[in-house]
Amino acid sequence: MRVAVVGAGVSGLTATKCCLDEGLEPTCFEQSRDIGGLWRYTEHIEAGRPSLYPSVISNTSKEMSAFSDFPYPEDFPVFLPNARFLNYLQRYAEHFGLRKHIKFGTTVVSIRKHPDFATTGQWDVVTEAEGKQTLHVFDAVMVCSGNFSEPYLPLHCFPGIERFQGQYFHSRQYKHPDVFQGKRVLVVGMGNSGVDIAVEASRVATKVTVSTSRGAWVFGRVFDHGYPWDMVFNTRLMSLIRNSLPRPLSWGLINYRVNQWFNHKNYGLQPEGVFFMSCLVREPVLNDDLPSYILTGRITIKPGVKEFKDNSVVFHNCPEEEPIDIVVFCTGYNVSFPFLEEAVIKVENKHASLYKYVFPTHLQRPTLAVLGLIKTLGAMMPVTEVQARWVTRVFKGLCRLPPQSLMEKEVNEKKKNQVFGLSFDEVLKTEWLVYMDELASFIGAKPSVLGLLCRDPRLALTIFFGPCTPYQYRLGGPGRWEGARQAILTQWDRTLKPTRTRVPASSSSLCPSLLTVVGVLLLLAALVFGFQ
Amino acid sequence: MRVAVVGAGVSGLTATKCCLDEGLEPTCFEQSRDIGGLWRYTEHIEAGRPSLYPSVISNTSKEMSAFSDFPYPEDFPVFLPNARFLNYLQRYAEHFGLRKHIKFGTTVVSIRKHPDFATTGQWDVVTEAEGKQTLHVFDAVMVCSGNFSEPYLPLHCFPGIERFQGQYFHSRQYKHPDVFQGKRVLVVGMGNSGVDIAVEASRVATKVTVSTSRGAWVFGRVFDHGYPWDMVFNTRLMSLIRNSLPRPLSWGLINYRVNQWFNHKNYGLQPEGVFFMSCLVREPVLNDDLPSYILTGRITIKPGVKEFKDNSVVFHNCPEEEPIDIVVFCTGYNVSFPFLEEAVIKVENKHASLYKYVFPTHLQRPTLAVLGLIKTLGAMMPVTEVQARWVTRVFKGLCRLPPQSLMEKEVNEKKKNQVFGLSFDEVLKTEWLVYMDELASFIGAKPSVLGLLCRDPRLALTIFFGPCTPYQYRLGGPGRWEGARQAILTQWDRTLKPTRTRVPASSSSLCPSLLTVVGVLLLLAALVFGFQ
Repeated sequence: MRVAVVGAGVSGLTATKCCLDEGLEPTCFEQSRDIGGLWRYTEHIEAGRPSLYPSVISNTSKEMSAFSDFPYPEDFPVFLPNARFLNYLQRYAEHFGLRKHIKFGTTVVSIRKHPDFATTGQWDVVTEAEGKQTLHVFDAVMVCSGNFSEPYLPLHCFPGIERFQGQYFHSRQYKHPDVFQGKRVLVVGMGNSGVDIAVEASRVATKVTVSTSRGAWVFGRVFDHGYPWDMVFNTRLMSLIRNSLPRPLSWGLINYRVNQWFNHKNYGLQPEGVFFMSCLVREPVLNDDLPSYILTGRITIKPGVKEFKDNSVVFHNCPEEEPIDIVVFCTGYNVSFPFLEEAVIKVENKHASLYKYVFPTHLQRPTLAVLGLIKTLGAMMPVTEVQARWVTRVFKGLCRLPPQSLMEKEVNEKKKNQVFGLSFDEVLKTEWLVYMDELASFIGAKPSVLGLLCRDPRLALTIFFGPCTPYQYRLGGPGRWEGARQAILTQWDRTLKPTRTRVPASSSSLCPSLLTVVGVLLLLAALVFGFQ
Repeated sequence: MRVAVVGAGVSGLTATKCCLDEGLEPTCFEQSRDIGGLWRYTEHIEAGRPSLYPSVISNTSKEMSAFSDFPYPEDFPVFLPNARFLNYLQRYAEHFGLRKHIKFGTTVVSIRKHPDFATTGQWDVVTEAEGKQTLHVFDAVMVCSGNFSEPYLPLHCFPGIERFQGQYFHSRQYKHPDVFQGKRVLVVGMGNSGVDIAVEASRVATKVTVSTSRGAWVFGRVFDHGYPWDMVFNTRLMSLIRNSLPRPLSWGLINYRVNQWFNHKNYGLQPEGVFFMSCLVREPVLNDDLPSYILTGRITIKPGVKEFKDNSVVFHNCPEEEPIDIVVFCTGYNVSFPFLEEAVIKVENKHASLYKYVFPTHLQRPTLAVLGLIKTLGAMMPVTEVQARWVTRVFKGLCRLPPQSLMEKEVNEKKKNQVFGLSFDEVLKTEWLVYMDELASFIGAKPSVLGLLCRDPRLALTIFFGPCTPYQYRLGGPGRWEGARQAILTQWDRTLKPTRTRVPASSSSLCPSLLTVVGVLLLLAALVFGFQ
């Protein structure tokens, strides 16, 4: 069974690898000259390819961002600068011999149903390499083309932009902060790149203002007691708690925690709208620097842009004009599949009819899948990997999709409910861990905590209370990996190794905790009697 | 009564102002061409003057760093970039008409007892301006020359430094990170400037390693719920709690809080030595960036330097050599008074015999005082101001010092007890608030919370539970300021104003707190029943 894989980024690589695991015959088409997709930094911006700025660092920790049978080397930092992440992908491709299945410099021009699609499920795939087009016939297609190539720049939403005399560009064009030297900078939009760019700009610019109409909750990579945020946030225990409580309450808890770091209202970041709506429709921003940059006046937060003038900008609810020399629009990206007909996937208002965010609901045969489109509050790599594992088993007929009507019903129900809608732009509706568990259960790879509790209690407790590292999905079922148990039990060793680089000679760990207990008791006594 | 003030930095300016308040006649000698001392940034490093790097931001918040009768403008950021702080000093000098009392470009060459010192307490002050020396006779002297001019670089403590082929320099020489471009950088020492420089270097360097034998506790400016650290830490309530508990316990509490942000052990920063000793002898480092820079691998912490080799360094307890191109020694500064005889102040092993860190104990007449030498865990400005207020009243004879023997006894007792020693290098032994209260009580300016409780309960509660802003020392006594009460009651307005720059249209503040309460209850329920 021959499978076409479109793109050799994170999703494309693991799709290729999962095909091999299942005995399928993958051919991966990559338009550029090397693997890595988004994560391959190039100084030059290439059309149709994602573009990174050099300072990008992964938002999720290395243990949570691993492919499930390939842990990171223990000396890799906990959060990976883009070059280290690319290095990991290269090692992955090397280790599983993926390169020989990738055709570089080959663009997928069109994917159309083969004339006898209804019976064979085959696809006609036209590719172009060195100006020459070729027609292939594949039994199945995995679309792994990503969604960071086509910038979304809605200039019509910014009245007066045409008379603005300064410079402006989309965040995709951003590489180095030098352009901001001595300038008054406006960053429009408060996603991860917006905040990253604002922070970098503020080190050289005269003034940096970030305009956000919706606001955002900000998380730090350095979370409770300095542990990586996702290793604290994405545990089975925390997920159970969040999903046992009604949504607004569970979000209330998260937001209480988020405001413990800093009060978002005092920093001008409070998301707009009713409390329990706002937190659902906005993806949190991940940045450790922003609060201190606001507190030290290096970055100023402002409401949405009302209009541009010749050399300034006016914000909503603000009487004064703000003089501006340069504007960066961090307004995100469009999702599009130029090589697919609308009949296959129609993207409408950032919604698409995809069952479990993967399979188009209305195809007669489930032989085309989209990988890595869903955004959840967690690492991308294990999500796209479990998608690929499921998809390959569906292709082989070992897993079955529900009847078309059922799939459509599910998707439409989600669509109707705007807040929990099936939109790639809006996250947090599908919990990272819940989604992975669901897909893993389809292929029989979901770990059973209760089942393990008798056989291997240490492992069971680590799985339940510890971070949900991807190795959990290799403990059993198809694609079982011998090293999974050991990888889970040593996950914290690999996490602490790169930062525990100095151990003082005579540190006593007992003393503080003992002192703390006594201290807390005495503190209470002091509070009771102190004011008398 | 004519008073010589040496230096026109923070201490010199407030000394001059306090002299004027008390009807004394100050003459301030400033060797450079303008006011500001440490805080006047110059691109060029001038001999005998402090040298800042351009990115320096105040470690203490603006409300806590104000002179007690001169609040910052409300639009100033909460923590001040050095240029803004200098601007504040300029406004202060302007507002109180201090400039006409300052002789710029005039260096104090020597200060000697006048022949009839024993009866008059007068001093012969020799100054030099434009190559010409002048002898003045003054009734009293205030030494405000600071202690950031003479770098401390103990090269003999670093074996092999003479064979090291790379570049090295003292942090005083540091201005811009460009020198680190593409280099492997070693920062020796983990004070505030060491960490600042490491963070800046890591944005351009190939690799940055910080060597610290003692480790350090790291505080962030962004503290509990995002409030400035010193406005949470330095309240009368917190101070009472800390001082009611035995020292090790109170430090246990602080350290528990510090480790809540991130576990210092996991980040290689745990201070060396027994727990309750270590935390007393090290000044905490103030930095918001360090933890995330360690977690993302941009900065690596290593133990103390064992030796240098041609192109590398070896650390204690580490087998591997670390290749290094450039070393920055952030080893601090010496305290010295070149214009004073040793008979007046002798600095020995970083100790000096100064009563309350201000008056030499063995002079027949208390007509010479040193300001701003003490380091406490809090803002410098109000401390040096209250010193100046006390000193001027001692000069005038309105306050009396204890007999010489008593002063010497107190100083010697502190000296003997090394941990709590009278050393400028070691802080935290004298609590910021306690020290200011003590000096304020000498001049009758210490606020009485209990006394106020009946007359003005709102003010009393704000004083007790709120941050100890310096205006508290202007509520009564000599130098009472009409605006003090208002300044105290509006301290949070001025703090929140510069960051609350975006207020969303429909934010409901009730909702989250209500949700949180219900959420916490349900969380407990979930924890109890969740695993069943």
